[in-house]
Amino acid sequence: MPEKGHRYAAKVDLNKDAAEQPYLHNRWHPDIPTAGTIKPGETVKIECVDWTGGQIKNNDSADDMRDIDLTKIHYLTGPFEIETAEPGDVLLVEIQDVQPLEEQPWGFTGIFSKQNGGGFLDEIYPNPAKAIWDFEGIHCSSRHIPGVRFAGLIHPGILGCAPSAEVLKTWNDREGQLISECSHMDRDVAKPPEPHNVHAGSAGQAIKEKVGKEGARTIPGRPEHGGNCDIKNLSRGSKVYLPVHVKGAKFSVGDLHFSQGDGEISFCGAIEMAGCITIKFSVMKGGMKKLDMKSPIYIPGPVEPQFGPGRYIYFEGFSVDEKGKQYYLDTTVAYRQTSLRVIEYLRRFGYNDYQIYLLLSCAPVQGHVAGIVDIPNACTTMGLPIDIFDFDISPHVEAVKRDMGSCAFTSS
Amino acid sequence: MPEKGHRYAAKVDLNKDAAEQPYLHNRWHPDIPTAGTIKPGETVKIECVDWTGGQIKNNDSADDMRDIDLTKIHYLTGPFEIETAEPGDVLLVEIQDVQPLEEQPWGFTGIFSKQNGGGFLDEIYPNPAKAIWDFEGIHCSSRHIPGVRFAGLIHPGILGCAPSAEVLKTWNDREGQLISECSHMDRDVAKPPEPHNVHAGSAGQAIKEKVGKEGARTIPGRPEHGGNCDIKNLSRGSKVYLPVHVKGAKFSVGDLHFSQGDGEISFCGAIEMAGCITIKFSVMKGGMKKLDMKSPIYIPGPVEPQFGPGRYIYFEGFSVDEKGKQYYLDTTVAYRQTSLRVIEYLRRFGYNDYQIYLLLSCAPVQGHVAGIVDIPNACTTMGLPIDIFDFDISPHVEAVKRDMGSCAFTSS
Amino acid sequence: MPEKGHRYAAKVDLNKDAAEQPYLHNRWHPDIPTAGTIKPGETVKIECVDWTGGQIKNNDSADDMRDIDLTKIHYLTGPFEIETAEPGDVLLVEIQDVQPLEEQPWGFTGIFSKQNGGGFLDEIYPNPAKAIWDFEGIHCSSRHIPGVRFAGLIHPGILGCAPSAEVLKTWNDREGQLISECSHMDRDVAKPPEPHNVHAGSAGQAIKEKVGKEGARTIPGRPEHGGNCDIKNLSRGSKVYLPVHVKGAKFSVGDLHFSQGDGEISFCGAIEMAGCITIKFSVMKGGMKKLDMKSPIYIPGPVEPQFGPGRYIYFEGFSVDEKGKQYYLDTTVAYRQTSLRVIEYLRRFGYNDYQIYLLLSCAPVQGHVAGIVDIPNACTTMGLPIDIFDFDISPHVEAVKRDMGSCAFTSS
Amino acid sequence: MPEKGHRYAAKVDLNKDAAEQPYLHNRWHPDIPTAGTIKPGETVKIECVDWTGGQIKNNDSADDMRDIDLTKIHYLTGPFEIETAEPGDVLLVEIQDVQPLEEQPWGFTGIFSKQNGGGFLDEIYPNPAKAIWDFEGIHCSSRHIPGVRFAGLIHPGILGCAPSAEVLKTWNDREGQLISECSHMDRDVAKPPEPHNVHAGSAGQAIKEKVGKEGARTIPGRPEHGGNCDIKNLSRGSKVYLPVHVKGAKFSVGDLHFSQGDGEISFCGAIEMAGCITIKFSVMKGGMKKLDMKSPIYIPGPVEPQFGPGRYIYFEGFSVDEKGKQYYLDTTVAYRQTSLRVIEYLRRFGYNDYQIYLLLSCAPVQGHVAGIVDIPNACTTMGLPIDIFDFDISPHVEAVKRDMGSCAFTSS
Repeated sequence: MPEKGHRYAAKVDLNKDAAEQPYLHNRWHPDIPTAGTIKPGETVKIECVDWTGGQIKNNDSADDMRDIDLTKIHYLTGPFEIETAEPGDVLLVEIQDVQPLEEQPWGFTGIFSKQNGGGFLDEIYPNPAKAIWDFEGIHCSSRHIPGVRFAGLIHPGILGCAPSAEVLKTWNDREGQLISECSHMDRDVAKPPEPHNVHAGSAGQAIKEKVGKEGARTIPGRPEHGGNCDIKNLSRGSKVYLPVHVKGAKFSVGDLHFSQGDGEISFCGAIEMAGCITIKFSVMKGGMKKLDMKSPIYIPGPVEPQFGPGRYIYFEGFSVDEKGKQYYLDTTVAYRQTSLRVIEYLRRFGYNDYQIYLLLSCAPVQGHVAGIVDIPNACTTMGLPIDIFDFDISPHVEAVKRDMGSCAFTSS
Repeated sequence: MPEKGHRYAAKVDLNKDAAEQPYLHNRWHPDIPTAGTIKPGETVKIECVDWTGGQIKNNDSADDMRDIDLTKIHYLTGPFEIETAEPGDVLLVEIQDVQPLEEQPWGFTGIFSKQNGGGFLDEIYPNPAKAIWDFEGIHCSSRHIPGVRFAGLIHPGILGCAPSAEVLKTWNDREGQLISECSHMDRDVAKPPEPHNVHAGSAGQAIKEKVGKEGARTIPGRPEHGGNCDIKNLSRGSKVYLPVHVKGAKFSVGDLHFSQGDGEISFCGAIEMAGCITIKFSVMKGGMKKLDMKSPIYIPGPVEPQFGPGRYIYFEGFSVDEKGKQYYLDTTVAYRQTSLRVIEYLRRFGYNDYQIYLLLSCAPVQGHVAGIVDIPNACTTMGLPIDIFDFDISPHVEAVKRDMGSCAFTSS
Repeated sequence: MPEKGHRYAAKVDLNKDAAEQPYLHNRWHPDIPTAGTIKPGETVKIECVDWTGGQIKNNDSADDMRDIDLTKIHYLTGPFEIETAEPGDVLLVEIQDVQPLEEQPWGFTGIFSKQNGGGFLDEIYPNPAKAIWDFEGIHCSSRHIPGVRFAGLIHPGILGCAPSAEVLKTWNDREGQLISECSHMDRDVAKPPEPHNVHAGSAGQAIKEKVGKEGARTIPGRPEHGGNCDIKNLSRGSKVYLPVHVKGAKFSVGDLHFSQGDGEISFCGAIEMAGCITIKFSVMKGGMKKLDMKSPIYIPGPVEPQFGPGRYIYFEGFSVDEKGKQYYLDTTVAYRQTSLRVIEYLRRFGYNDYQIYLLLSCAPVQGHVAGIVDIPNACTTMGLPIDIFDFDISPHVEAVKRDMGSCAFTSS
Repeated sequence: MPEKGHRYAAKVDLNKDAAEQPYLHNRWHPDIPTAGTIKPGETVKIECVDWTGGQIKNNDSADDMRDIDLTKIHYLTGPFEIETAEPGDVLLVEIQDVQPLEEQPWGFTGIFSKQNGGGFLDEIYPNPAKAIWDFEGIHCSSRHIPGVRFAGLIHPGILGCAPSAEVLKTWNDREGQLISECSHMDRDVAKPPEPHNVHAGSAGQAIKEKVGKEGARTIPGRPEHGGNCDIKNLSRGSKVYLPVHVKGAKFSVGDLHFSQGDGEISFCGAIEMAGCITIKFSVMKGGMKKLDMKSPIYIPGPVEPQFGPGRYIYFEGFSVDEKGKQYYLDTTVAYRQTSLRVIEYLRRFGYNDYQIYLLLSCAPVQGHVAGIVDIPNACTTMGLPIDIFDFDISPHVEAVKRDMGSCAFTSS
């Protein structure tokens, strides 16, 4: 290693519009120009803006949440060409560290309006809301959600290699079909390519238009490359094995999270931040076949916050919705019910429901598939760590309502 | 505590037909006669048969899996009347210990025929199969799945209080409605009451008929009382808070598991066993309102097997099925894909797919909801512990096919 | 494995004098007759009496502690001959399970009189005392130390293979030399062979006399074979590698502990119990040379109680004694000081010092060597788990004195 | 919190002689001038040089180890005055983060010559040696000890408040007495005040002379204030409760370690580094009496690297030295033997003894007091994490000697 530390493969400028920065992009497309070259075996630092590119401010209003422009997101850093990587290889990404930027030691968790983005519980909680989190070393706390403080399980929400033209076509076809099948539904079921606000890095106009027309949106994770998988445990020390679909891999990363709960239920639900990720890259030649790999796999790092199994309260939810309707092994319904059970539990201490919705999105809650075969009920669980609260939330302790202030709401 | 140990609230006889034993029953109904009375604060031992009541044998054929009679299951021990418990209370169940019966130190994991019970992957793996597990203290191993050995996370698959008549009606109504709505589907979506093979404990004929006609099947867990929630972490030292719906609570327990993976994907998927559970009971008066509780909650015990986060390989799955069809935030589809990814990975070492399907059902795999809001893809993960294998399954090690024998299949 | 479970290699009878039972012995000597033969690869159950052979009773007086006859202890079960084992081999002992005897679900922790046995803090706490612990499944609690309850980290205090005649001579020589060098000291520094109350299993008179004259006492662990190493983490699932010094290994085990703290400071300091241990034996031919092994090594099992690192309060102690005298890198003095710091801390809650001394001996406290090179001060730490108390002992919570009753003391 | 992050209470300059920097000092004395003032409740960043003040270089020779000037060490940053703190209070120090300096991403572990500093095993390994460690995010590896890589448990070796004049006199008296009592010994047993190379921060000449004459050396931790306790678990997220002896507390910190093993056996045994520590300070008024506190206590943070208990090999050592001499409950002798057992074990893989001695000093080995009452043998254990090696060191795997290169030695 160079004695003075690893080089920066890319830096960002928080005082400049994300759309103007050439090492950022906001669509998946094989033709986005490379942001630099990295050697196999090399470790580099990569800076990232927050996923919205700075649209959300450190203040006490959720107006910015309400007004967010989702055609702009997510701003990713890259793509980087990894030398020797070819289609069929596996790119091994070792996450050596993730840190907030020193000049911006805070992040945000948000709830979008049901009319603009929505979230997992938007039928019940349709309004925008926001919490700002201050970072104190490895810990964070929020003036908008008093009484909690926890160590971040810091990680990137998005990382992946570029799709090939063929993979990209598969994505657009199958998501397009879902959109047409669900046209009767009252909500967006997927996001088609969107030329408006496309950012294709340093691409010229022709490529930029092509990317706008064909480029896959960054919102969903996808089986072929990972992408926005929003896995809370991809933290310091993790190793991720990513399928390579194009020459040079064209790796991008972004959407850094100081912390996230399983499910990231409010959609803008992690503690979103700008930051710097240190990665070591290696190439496993012919890895996809060797590992018989269709989707990414990973091995978590050794330094996750540990609470001890007996320091969680677990809530159960089943595939019967809040109106009493029975669903057939619907795990999504079950997990929504599980989330509601936690909200009902924590509300007793004086929090409003939006505060709890925000908290479950970003705190290190454990969301498990428990039983998925006992017809007709899927059962999921959510483990809430007792020790992130500075008062005792145990069921054997009588709940006392406290003044918990409020999260940020919109001005009108 | 009595100096000589806790009393047995119920014992079972493995040499006698389960249907003949008066402290067992196989439906949920408020009128099943009590199997005994327990004082609040008391700790008792309760023996249980395996969930099938002995239909599965320690041999090398899956014929018994194919021929299983599902109208008989699950055989539960109880119901026990807990003194002072009344509707609206919460029954606190502290699981002090769970042990296999000394005279039967083995268990089984099974895959049912798609025609008779099925399981999570039955479209792909429609045939019956079986693995027998030998217990060596806290560990288990199987002649049908060589190369693995692990400590059990021992727990009851089913525990809960009896439904009131009103709760029972709710169950029958909503599940009946699902059945009628799904009559076009090629498979059972729920099980209605079934008089055939009903076992109502020591009930007389009239009650038995009533239970047969109205009694809820034990297969699904249900939000109002828990029941067959199949939560792998309800192990030694756990505390479970259960809603009480009838006077005396009428608590039943059964379906003991030596170990289970999140999801228990093959349905008969845990390591099913006969055993003894030691429970301390307490009553929290008015607990449902105090805790604002609609479904059970629990706190795991402190002695779960610990592998360290870096000793899991995690697999990702998304809501795109194996034919390439895109689903809208369907977590069940995502978890099925996640399971298939693990099968593909482990197949490289010489296991057949049924062996792996069995293993993922019963070994302590961690099934997580990762992202559930990134339209259209739900993302789930499954963590496979490296250290349950006696060879190195790490991705950086070249996979060598071994002779892994086979699980048990049917004779014809 | 036999379908009906592992065989008992030895059973004990709690209603019979330990000195009369042929499979027990209380000295280390190669000539003690074998108590049975075990095949390599075999798993057996071995029952053990408590280390005192039943001298301590479940009552509220410490008279039995004061009057204990230490010439009788420890009663071990064995020795067992492991087929094929020869000097120079390593005996691999896999501890599959440890359980209390069902008919005796309680144990004891004691402090001996400074005049008869003593303990780590006997200069300060010279009087006998006792606590009785009731087992509730994996948990224990004591009427003599209210306010605490914890899961046992159950293990054998003693296991090892018989010394050869040569090894035995080494022991007797070097300990004899210490005794003569320390004759000026006010206390026993080691225990020489003691014919009185020797128990040599089924030996005839001649052998019994020889064992009495030469047999090593069981109190110290010793580097050549382990023995009474009192390691709290040798629990369920552990693998221990033991040097073999005689043909057949002649393995013995006993001194079962339901739980113990690092140091077992009060000497009779674990939760001492009668019980049954299930062990799988294997022989590693030529293992001592292969592993370059002089003393036993082990790998703990995976099911230790987990509290999370942030759920311990750690106390520091240095090699300056309570009179202010400075010692040179004396870790024993440092650990004594560390223990005293915890006593001072817990005393604030209403416990008397003897209760705490007992508690630190048997609860799962973590005793660490921190710094051992910073002349002149060795520094050790003791981690006290917060979650074994049913009230909050955190330093930020104001300590309130409670009525904590008392441990058992002598009648006069 | 200020939106732009916490302020630096002190910065260091790696290009300038440590002895010239006014915020550093290298003795404990109440009269060293304050380096700044911190408010209770405030969080600040504090930079530190490595403990030697840059005497050790990133190269492949141990000449700098041999030639080190120990009159200069340790360079600490401070002392800081914490507003409102007074004698008898407790200073609560929350370690929010510790990081290496970005411009110096490496550290060193050293063995001093027996003639100049020595270490725990210097009778056996008297020569200087060195290993340089490169930091890769949270991990480190060394060209001098191939085959290992691990996550750092990063922490300060030294933190504490200044002694009062009275406390200082106690230290000098009792250590002086030890020195005179041990004048016959062949080695330094303690370090008296040393005017040569004293650094008293920004003090004028008179104070500097006083500090030189009276100031306590920083090498030992001491019960009254902690100081150089070298506790490996004082890492990110820890809370330390420190006794206050002078007005303003006069807190100092330094000797940052990227990682350390229990005991830090080679003396310069941690991975020593320059870095930045982020601390939140609070004052607990009258805390010493409230907590009945004589020595510091602490609560570790939640993010320690976790290996799982079954991923350690534990070695046992007893108080019989390598010449066969028996000691009476000498835990220091036992821990030395334990260390030697690990060296013998690891030597089989091709490492030289000095490489292993260095490794055990700095890798996260667990050093436990096991039994400390079984006369005459104290028993200690050392747990070696299997997963820090990139090959399998398990005892069941045949050891193969590899080319492990060498650590750095002196040039002649």
